Amino acid sequence: MKRFRVELKKTVDDSYDVQIGRNLIPELAKDMENGLVGRCKKFAIITDSNVKDLYAVPVCGELEKAGFSAELFEFPAGEKSKSRRTKEIIEDAMLEKGFRRDCCVVAVGGGVVTDLAGFVAGTFGRGVPFVNYATTLLAAADASIGGKTAVDTELATNLIGLIYQPRKVYVDIGAWKTLPRQHLINGLAETVKHACLADAEFFEYIENHVDDVLNVVPEVCEHISEKNCNVKYQVVMKDEKEKSLREILNLGHTVGRAIETVSDYRLLHGEALSIGMAAQVKLGCKLRFLSAEQRDRVIALLERIGLPVRIPDYIDRDELIKKLYTDKKVRDGKLRFVFQKGIGDVITFGDDIYARPVAEAEIRSILEEM
Amino acid sequence: MKRFRVELKKTVDDSYDVQIGRNLIPELAKDMENGLVGRCKKFAIITDSNVKDLYAVPVCGELEKAGFSAELFEFPAGEKSKSRRTKEIIEDAMLEKGFRRDCCVVAVGGGVVTDLAGFVAGTFGRGVPFVNYATTLLAAADASIGGKTAVDTELATNLIGLIYQPRKVYVDIGAWKTLPRQHLINGLAETVKHACLADAEFFEYIENHVDDVLNVVPEVCEHISEKNCNVKYQVVMKDEKEKSLREILNLGHTVGRAIETVSDYRLLHGEALSIGMAAQVKLGCKLRFLSAEQRDRVIALLERIGLPVRIPDYIDRDELIKKLYTDKKVRDGKLRFVFQKGIGDVITFGDDIYARPVAEAEIRSILEEM
Repeated sequence: MKRFRVELKKTVDDSYDVQIGRNLIPELAKDMENGLVGRCKKFAIITDSNVKDLYAVPVCGELEKAGFSAELFEFPAGEKSKSRRTKEIIEDAMLEKGFRRDCCVVAVGGGVVTDLAGFVAGTFGRGVPFVNYATTLLAAADASIGGKTAVDTELATNLIGLIYQPRKVYVDIGAWKTLPRQHLINGLAETVKHACLADAEFFEYIENHVDDVLNVVPEVCEHISEKNCNVKYQVVMKDEKEKSLREILNLGHTVGRAIETVSDYRLLHGEALSIGMAAQVKLGCKLRFLSAEQRDRVIALLERIGLPVRIPDYIDRDELIKKLYTDKKVRDGKLRFVFQKGIGDVITFGDDIYARPVAEAEIRSILEEM
Repeated sequence: MKRFRVELKKTVDDSYDVQIGRNLIPELAKDMENGLVGRCKKFAIITDSNVKDLYAVPVCGELEKAGFSAELFEFPAGEKSKSRRTKEIIEDAMLEKGFRRDCCVVAVGGGVVTDLAGFVAGTFGRGVPFVNYATTLLAAADASIGGKTAVDTELATNLIGLIYQPRKVYVDIGAWKTLPRQHLINGLAETVKHACLADAEFFEYIENHVDDVLNVVPEVCEHISEKNCNVKYQVVMKDEKEKSLREILNLGHTVGRAIETVSDYRLLHGEALSIGMAAQVKLGCKLRFLSAEQRDRVIALLERIGLPVRIPDYIDRDELIKKLYTDKKVRDGKLRFVFQKGIGDVITFGDDIYARPVAEAEIRSILEEM
C-alpha cells in the first residue's frame, strides 16, 4: 500500500471593487480596456427580457466601440428562468457562437440575472471571469456581494450553484428610475432585512426615507446601496473566520423562500421575504428575542413600504410547512431559524451558532395565524 | 459616485492524500469515522452500472456498518452519461431523498464517475465534500489528481465543469482484475501520454511491462499508478505558478477528444487518445520535435498494448477537422497543439507557452494519411 500527499496550499486574492453611481456603462468599457479581465476580447452579455434594450444593448455597443467582440444572450425575465434549463440554453448558445475559455461574462440586470450568469461563468470552461452590472436595488443589496450564484430546481431554491466571485460590480442607481414601482418595493425587503440584523441606525434611516427611495432621490439611493453592500460585506468578510456567520443573511428566508416556491413565483422574492420577516419577528417575539413593540415596528415598516406581511390565501399551509424542510439550514432533518435580537442585531446560540432549531409546532402556530 | 473594495484575500489549503492499494473500502469507512469530512453523517455514493455491485454496494454497506447513512445513486456506464442530464437526475434524486448541504459525495468508479460525481459535489449546496474511490487505471491516471470535473455537451467535451478538489483519493488496484481487458488497455493510453511528456525512464518501464500490467501483477500496477499520479501531480503543482503548464496534460487530446466525439463514443477515451497521440507524434516528427525513430517507438508501444493508432473508416474527416475547433486550447479561432520533445519532455514555445498554433492544412494532411 502506498500513500502520498497532494499539497495544494495557496493564497487566493478574489478581491474586487464595487462602484455605485449613475450610468456606469462607459466605466465598464474603460475597465475592460484597462485589462480588468486580462487579455480577454470576447464578451458574453447575459441579460433578461426586461433590461435587454435599456442596458444590455448599450453595454454591447460600448464594448464593441472599444474594439471588443460582444454577443447578447437573453432569457425571459422572472425567477422561473433561474433554472438549470436556462443555464443549459445559454451555455449551448455560447458554444454555438464559438465561445470558449478565453471569454468573459457580463451579467446585466437584477438578482436573477446576476445569480444565473455568475453560475454560467463559474462552470463555463471550468470558470471564466465575470462582472455584474446590477440594475436593481435587489441586485445591489443581495447579489453584488458574496459571490453566491445558483439556480432553483423543482425541489429546492438556490441549492445548485457555486460561490464564485465577480471581478467587479457596477451598481447603476440610475437604472432604478426605469424599474416598475413593484420591483423597487420588492428590493427594499432585503434592505430592511440588512438593517434588522446589523444596523439600528440604518433601520431608522429607512423609516425616514421610504418615500425618497420610492421616488429615486439620488443621494438616498446611493446611501441605501452603500449601507446594503456594507452590511453584507461585513458579514461575508467575517464569515471567512466564523464559518456560520453567513447564515444570518438568511434572516426571514426560511419561511420566505418556502412561500416564494409554493406561490409558484407569483410572489416576488422580496414580497415573499417580507412575509418571512414578519413570521420571523412574530416567532422571535414569542421566544422573547425582541419586544412586541420592536416586532410591530418591523411589520409597520414593511407595510409602509408596500410589502405584504400576511400569507396569501392561495398558499396551502401544509405544503408550506413541508417546503420548509427543503431549506439549506435544515440539519439532521430539523428546521433551523435565524432570529434578530431587537432591531439591528442577531441572536447567537453559543459560539458561532446563529441558527436555532425550531419545532414544527412552533412555526406552524405562527403560520396558521398569519 | 462611490466606490469600495471587497477584500477577499485568503489562504486555502486544498491538500489531500492519494492512497494506492488493494481493497481500500474499510480504509474509506475508517477515514470517515476519523472525521475526514467533518461532522458529515450522510453519504451519497455515486456510481455507474458497471461497478455498482462490485464496489459501490460494499462502500455503502461499510459506511452503514460504521453508523452513517448512505444512499446509492447509479447511472448507466459509459461516456455518454457524462452529461448535464445525468447530473440533473442525480441532483434531483439526492434532493428527493433529503440530501442538503451537510452531505458528502463518494464517487465509486472510473473516470466518467469521478468527473461527473465531482461536478455534482462541486455545485450541490454550492459545494459539499467528496472523495474518489477509483476502480480503473484511467481514473488513477487521469481523474485522481488535478480536481478537474466536467460533463460533455453536444457541442464540446469537458467544457462545462469545475476545478474542485476531492478530500481524498483511493486507488484500488485490486479492482483492475475485474475490469474488462479492453478497459485496462484503454487506461494505458493516459499512462503512455504521461511517460511521453515527462518521464523517459517510465516509458521504458512500460515497454518492458506491458504483459504484466495486462495480467494485473500487483507490484507493477502499484508502480504504474504511482508514476502516473506523480507525473500529473508535478504538472498540476507547478501550474500554480506557470499558468499554462497544465496544458501539457492535453498532449494527444486535441485530435483524441475530437475523434472520441465524432465516433459518438464508439471509441473509448483511451482509444481515441491513442489515435490522437499517433497524430501528435506524426505531426511532431514532421516539425522535427522528435525523430522518426522516436515517433515509431511511441506508435509501436501503443500498438503492442493493443490500442488503435489509425482513424477508423467510419470517421468523417471533414467533421473531424471541424470538431477540432471546439478544443479548449483554441485561441482567437486558431488550433493549438501540445507536442512532445523526443520522449519524456515537451516542447516549449517561449516563456510559459506550451501549445503551438497549427495551420489547418498541416493537421489535415496528417489526418488524411491516417
